[in-house]
Amino acid sequence: MAGLWFTEKQTENFGITMKVKRTLHTEKTDFQYLEMVETEEWGNMLLLDGMVMTTQRDEFVYHEMVAHVPLFTHPNPENVLVVGGGDGGVIREVLKHPNVKKATLVDIDGKVIEYSKKYLPEIASGLEDERVEVKVDDGFMHIAQSENEYDVIMVDSTEPVGPAVNLFTKGFYAGISKALKEDGIFVAQTDNPWFKADLIRKVQKDVKEIFPITRLYLANIPTYPSGLWSFTIGSKKYDPLAVPDEQFLDIETKYYTKEIHKAAFVLPKFVQDLTK
Amino acid sequence: MAGLWFTEKQTENFGITMKVKRTLHTEKTDFQYLEMVETEEWGNMLLLDGMVMTTQRDEFVYHEMVAHVPLFTHPNPENVLVVGGGDGGVIREVLKHPNVKKATLVDIDGKVIEYSKKYLPEIASGLEDERVEVKVDDGFMHIAQSENEYDVIMVDSTEPVGPAVNLFTKGFYAGISKALKEDGIFVAQTDNPWFKADLIRKVQKDVKEIFPITRLYLANIPTYPSGLWSFTIGSKKYDPLAVPDEQFLDIETKYYTKEIHKAAFVLPKFVQDLTK
Repeated sequence: MAGLWFTEKQTENFGITMKVKRTLHTEKTDFQYLEMVETEEWGNMLLLDGMVMTTQRDEFVYHEMVAHVPLFTHPNPENVLVVGGGDGGVIREVLKHPNVKKATLVDIDGKVIEYSKKYLPEIASGLEDERVEVKVDDGFMHIAQSENEYDVIMVDSTEPVGPAVNLFTKGFYAGISKALKEDGIFVAQTDNPWFKADLIRKVQKDVKEIFPITRLYLANIPTYPSGLWSFTIGSKKYDPLAVPDEQFLDIETKYYTKEIHKAAFVLPKFVQDLTK
Repeated sequence: MAGLWFTEKQTENFGITMKVKRTLHTEKTDFQYLEMVETEEWGNMLLLDGMVMTTQRDEFVYHEMVAHVPLFTHPNPENVLVVGGGDGGVIREVLKHPNVKKATLVDIDGKVIEYSKKYLPEIASGLEDERVEVKVDDGFMHIAQSENEYDVIMVDSTEPVGPAVNLFTKGFYAGISKALKEDGIFVAQTDNPWFKADLIRKVQKDVKEIFPITRLYLANIPTYPSGLWSFTIGSKKYDPLAVPDEQFLDIETKYYTKEIHKAAFVLPKFVQDLTK
């Protein structure tokens, strides 16, 4: 059918809308409603429960910023875990780091992985790499069963509704702390400061009670609510704001640079206020 | 009428949509189609030719970032000019600078001023200040008739369609250079890097041919296309990246800080590439 527009209501009263060329796949999985859509403006797009997860055109921002900030903060990230992230975009970025020996992806929904490989092949491109282990499993349980194992954990979850609701709890952050080695770092996507100020404030408070170094950083993602996305870092030892210059390696990126690494932590005043 | 949504197509295939409480005023002025609308998410909103100009909820970002970056870069901005900006938001921020003795606003459309005073009173609040002179006039002509007069010029225009088309030409930037004193600075809003890369590239090239110091900086504005807005600075003497620390004064803001002043010039890689 021609002339179709998809609209995501990002709040009760505001949203984005985009022209759809065609629907590639829709399926009610065991966990969520999955849609793959070809759009005019953003290329192929993955929706979960009606929310934009990733698009071919702007995916690089999110995936680069989730992966490279913690990975360049850690001096030797050998063993890393991605919770969620079944599209494979974070894994693709992780594999750009030569120190990484093993990357484990744990996504609860195998269908996300399956259809990302099919319709978002340049995003999922790293999932077949020999350093990568893909597990279709509950990330919360995987974390609970891990101890002193990972250098870096990246939580690439959906919003705190549906299957990801446990991934925004203090108990989860405590589990992450246990699953990390004694100098480990984690990062989680923590939504946007315009519509979800309370969530960011709560996560900051919870993570601060567990990790000695807690930081918030930002990136611009046009297809996410407000265009401004936040990420929370909890770190046991290494400060993302005190990375030795020689620790930054040259890797190919479209958004991240070592200067962006630092500038992303400089917060607008109203966002800074959420971290106090 | 209940259940109305306003949609702005920011590109042919993408837009934002928001719930409207009621229309406050609509008018075909001599220059453009003016609408004032009360929205659920963003408060009162000014549209010109169907494009979001400003909303009560997120206006502070744009107005603070247009005004404070050049004004803190200049050591003694006494005489400043705002071209466009009839809503008064930039003027309100300009007046926070104690050095400013005179601020002239030149907007081609008196109706924008009139209805901003009525429906956006906290944005237009500075327009009655004794340091402010408001002229309903053609900004291009005003610039062409000025010589060696202003310390700082801020171009707060609409998009380069309709009445603002002349404000994105090299001839205009040459006029600005002439209207500025020998150590003057100007800033212009220059749209967004996701959908208007060619425009940014062209403005950078044109301004570089006239001003020895040319810089691009960014801010997050949720109701503007892509959520990421760019501003181009041309400066004859003072570098916005080399402001002495004591030159930053404490003023009340919600977005701008002296750290944001610096971080705003740190560009994502794909944006940096537009300035080369």
